[in-house]
Amino acid sequence: MAKYYSLRNLRFLVREVFQASEITKYPHFSHLDSETLEMVFDSAVQIADTIAYPAAEGMDKEQAEFANGSVTVHPAVEKYMKAMGESGLLGAAGSLEMGGSQLPVMSQTATGFVLTAANNSITMFTGLTAGSANLIASFGSQELKDTYLPNMYAGKWQGTMCLTEPQAGSSLHYITSSATPLADGSYKIKGHKIYISAGDHQFAENIVHLYLARIDGAPAGTKGISLFVVPKKRLENGQFVDNDVKTIGIFHKMGQKGTPAIHLETGSNGGTIGYLVGEPHKGLTYMFQMMNEARIGVGITGAAIASNVYYASLQYANERPQGQKLTIKGQDPNTPQTLIINHPDVKRMLLFQKSIVEGSISLIMQASKYADLAHVLEAGEEKEKYQLLLDFLTPVVKTYPTEAGQHSVSQGVQVFGGGGYCTDFGVERLYRDIRITTIYEGTTGIQSQALLGRNIVMKNGKAAMLYFQEVQNTIKEANTYDALKKYAQKLTEATQLVQKVTQHLISFAMKGETERFLSDATLYMEMFGTVAIAWQWLLQGIYAQQSLLKGGLTEDDTTFYESKIHTMKFFFAYELPKTSYLATRLLDDEVLTCESEKVAFV
Amino acid sequence: MAKYYSLRNLRFLVREVFQASEITKYPHFSHLDSETLEMVFDSAVQIADTIAYPAAEGMDKEQAEFANGSVTVHPAVEKYMKAMGESGLLGAAGSLEMGGSQLPVMSQTATGFVLTAANNSITMFTGLTAGSANLIASFGSQELKDTYLPNMYAGKWQGTMCLTEPQAGSSLHYITSSATPLADGSYKIKGHKIYISAGDHQFAENIVHLYLARIDGAPAGTKGISLFVVPKKRLENGQFVDNDVKTIGIFHKMGQKGTPAIHLETGSNGGTIGYLVGEPHKGLTYMFQMMNEARIGVGITGAAIASNVYYASLQYANERPQGQKLTIKGQDPNTPQTLIINHPDVKRMLLFQKSIVEGSISLIMQASKYADLAHVLEAGEEKEKYQLLLDFLTPVVKTYPTEAGQHSVSQGVQVFGGGGYCTDFGVERLYRDIRITTIYEGTTGIQSQALLGRNIVMKNGKAAMLYFQEVQNTIKEANTYDALKKYAQKLTEATQLVQKVTQHLISFAMKGETERFLSDATLYMEMFGTVAIAWQWLLQGIYAQQSLLKGGLTEDDTTFYESKIHTMKFFFAYELPKTSYLATRLLDDEVLTCESEKVAFV
Repeated sequence: MAKYYSLRNLRFLVREVFQASEITKYPHFSHLDSETLEMVFDSAVQIADTIAYPAAEGMDKEQAEFANGSVTVHPAVEKYMKAMGESGLLGAAGSLEMGGSQLPVMSQTATGFVLTAANNSITMFTGLTAGSANLIASFGSQELKDTYLPNMYAGKWQGTMCLTEPQAGSSLHYITSSATPLADGSYKIKGHKIYISAGDHQFAENIVHLYLARIDGAPAGTKGISLFVVPKKRLENGQFVDNDVKTIGIFHKMGQKGTPAIHLETGSNGGTIGYLVGEPHKGLTYMFQMMNEARIGVGITGAAIASNVYYASLQYANERPQGQKLTIKGQDPNTPQTLIINHPDVKRMLLFQKSIVEGSISLIMQASKYADLAHVLEAGEEKEKYQLLLDFLTPVVKTYPTEAGQHSVSQGVQVFGGGGYCTDFGVERLYRDIRITTIYEGTTGIQSQALLGRNIVMKNGKAAMLYFQEVQNTIKEANTYDALKKYAQKLTEATQLVQKVTQHLISFAMKGETERFLSDATLYMEMFGTVAIAWQWLLQGIYAQQSLLKGGLTEDDTTFYESKIHTMKFFFAYELPKTSYLATRLLDDEVLTCESEKVAFV
Repeated sequence: MAKYYSLRNLRFLVREVFQASEITKYPHFSHLDSETLEMVFDSAVQIADTIAYPAAEGMDKEQAEFANGSVTVHPAVEKYMKAMGESGLLGAAGSLEMGGSQLPVMSQTATGFVLTAANNSITMFTGLTAGSANLIASFGSQELKDTYLPNMYAGKWQGTMCLTEPQAGSSLHYITSSATPLADGSYKIKGHKIYISAGDHQFAENIVHLYLARIDGAPAGTKGISLFVVPKKRLENGQFVDNDVKTIGIFHKMGQKGTPAIHLETGSNGGTIGYLVGEPHKGLTYMFQMMNEARIGVGITGAAIASNVYYASLQYANERPQGQKLTIKGQDPNTPQTLIINHPDVKRMLLFQKSIVEGSISLIMQASKYADLAHVLEAGEEKEKYQLLLDFLTPVVKTYPTEAGQHSVSQGVQVFGGGGYCTDFGVERLYRDIRITTIYEGTTGIQSQALLGRNIVMKNGKAAMLYFQEVQNTIKEANTYDALKKYAQKLTEATQLVQKVTQHLISFAMKGETERFLSDATLYMEMFGTVAIAWQWLLQGIYAQQSLLKGGLTEDDTTFYESKIHTMKFFFAYELPKTSYLATRLLDDEVLTCESEKVAFV
């Protein structure tokens, strides 16, 4: 099997940079020790290597289909769900009392990254099951928990998130699925939901939809949305009863073909019962827990797919002879061909991928550490700080790895030349797969508006202030190493530029010019994300430099740390300068996309 | 049928900006008048609308296949080849005496753009047939011309270009196909060729391969390559004889699935005869005619696919309600949804696409005009000037529309959200199709080295000087319009920056540091291409501004010209600033991808 992720890099991040052992000292994780965590990670690798990776090509070729009322997915899904349930990985986030494994988020990120790098279609099944189970665990009644969680954590029942409706798309404000109260406290549900990933298949004993709907008479807009558990089969006296939940169509996609995305109809015969989660009208607030988890999951997916393609193209570049080195080109026509990794253009494409993959996963791990700290700390300022940092960064964690990941994968395809465009190496499949990630769970445009329009200004800018403080701490530490001063200075300048742009844009918000404020939010996101990744590279540079200075390293470790420093330099030289052009646009006063400026598209 | 190109825009370019009527005044085109050219264009539109466009989806779904020794393509190919032959479009570049239509390149570009926008898989069949026929016409013996051209221009015989071999890929230096002289002046051919597009199918009476091989004892490297006509069936006494040319495999591709890309084996039974084109060892020089034509063709393909997706996403944005306008968001939850075209982020994605599509096709039309002038002018300085300008710009004409076109198509997919990722709207197909264009006919890396390493320095920089003079002329003219002065100034600065970077890079070439000189050629290409497109936008701005000032326009025309000006502004505000970040990198002295800087990829 080809290499598709770097174990050494994950260890570097988890152990050296983010020091997961600090987290597991807290009482919440007293059931864990480093050996247990190693075992959990090894189980994930085992499942990735033996089930997920080998099925990736087949799941693309024999895509999920819908016929005669049934959705059929690849047989590997059954083995995979079972293995994930039995290993405790499916219940990684669940509490011990509910049969979960109660693992740190950092550990979940590491295992999720490996599994998704192996096969990003298959991890959708467990990602959605875990996310919807966690939602029930957080906000559901004891009865809902008892009924659903054990079977979901065991991988027997499939979970889904049902948000999108045909007429409303990303705009949940306008969903119309209805919920009519019944005498026993349950609700009659009726509506249509589309793009329901893993929404039906033959290997789930039951499907548990976490479903947004409006209770009759609820207010318009997002403040009238409630959350329901809507199972495919409901339990009555310990027996399954059909719940009038029907798959009426399947969407054929460009990629992630192993995961069905279905059109779901509920209540067409008036027989769908749903169970309210938490209080009425607060459904969207609850759903944000799952959406935020899923956003980080999608970020992981972007980085993981890019990781797979990076190592595939690296292997190809190390094996494929073609052309002559530029240093000797044309000197002797009989010179044998050189490996393509010796061409600077190919090296650039590989370093680009490496810088995106390792920068992205570092940022995701950073956010995962914030999540863990927010979880384990006692209530107080520190806990709030980490929760704010996590919330603040979530749109960036979702967007950078998916947007930059697409460019990264495209460069990986390019390294293969014509071979990359053909099905032989699998990279064209990953090129198709990753394209969904900037659409899933809120498009890049929506994430960008969340970053600028909500997070930057939330709590009077407190989250932003905390974030810039984190960056500042890294810069300060980097400045204690001569070799890093140059890069610390570059990050300082880029950060100041982000702050300048931020102030400039906020001035429109202050004047009530919301459209102007947000019109180029997507470019702001690109700028902000690029600087965030530069921050992560400087942080990684510190730990690499420390180890190199300490000395006494194995040859492999020396090479690893030197490569880290080199890739950090690459990111600062080739990627960070993009912030200056984005700032040029963002500070420019020429308005071209707002309502005030009429433009006819002809 | 959905709109997939703009007739109004093509008219603007052909009639107003590039004034094709100037070209048709030359004696070479005395058989043409504007009415004839209109009729030719109308035939192309007719074929595009009735044959090409309707077959595009089917050609993707029922991809070209190879089984039992035969290659099968979609039935539309038969109708299409016939229609293209009968209309004279297949022989557009051919001389009247050889049965061609002898049309201006500008006319070929316009028709090729429309046909390829309709269906980029189907135009591969005719593009390759025309290109290989033109090669025989330019360099073949009278016998070869008489035997092959009439059937090729009629669309009965398929032409191909056979360059790539498994062990050599892009590096033609290392091809090993052999040609052994026979007593009658023909050659015995033996070898393997891969990725031969349209290399075999059931609708061609014969396949005519233009084939690179080495005559026994030829020098190593590119100076020992000769060009042959290698037909699938050779004619002996007016009868077809099998020529031992075999399809032994087909490549399954991510896109352009309607066009077979085959693995061709010649001479495995010692029975393949080839016919030398021109002189021995000059094959690559001849082949460059077809390669350069094909490069422009690939540039057209990039722009044409992006055009299709732009109009598809524009239509969707004009029909799809979702969310509230940012100007009123949150004020009243009962406000009905607005069309997504009213969101600035969507407008930005549409303007981005428009600026790429119309900028790209303008540059291609500019190059086509140079080609026409180089063709029709009497030998002399002017003729040489236009030939140099054409040669100089060819790598840019190939690369910008394909690289930027991919980003453009991706933004088009994004406008559709989840729908864009599904097969329903056809844009995911075009997203897959366009990905090949930066690989075909010399990858972006190769084009970039051609631009910087060859074209910039050729004839002591004369071509570059002529090019910058052209840009200067446009700037000078733009400066006579108050409304354009700001943009003329921006283009002046960007051009000076390109020149500064060019001088900086050439200094490495002067010192013999070839690797350093070319290591970031791809970034140089991106910078150069972006400024070239800004030049084309300023040029279009001049003609739009002229018409607006002249007045007396219909409402549609006013809208058209105002939209042109708006899109020009967009390109200058959102795209041109990229040149500054690219310059930062290109002027930076941190070397990270050359042999001198060891980097281990771990």
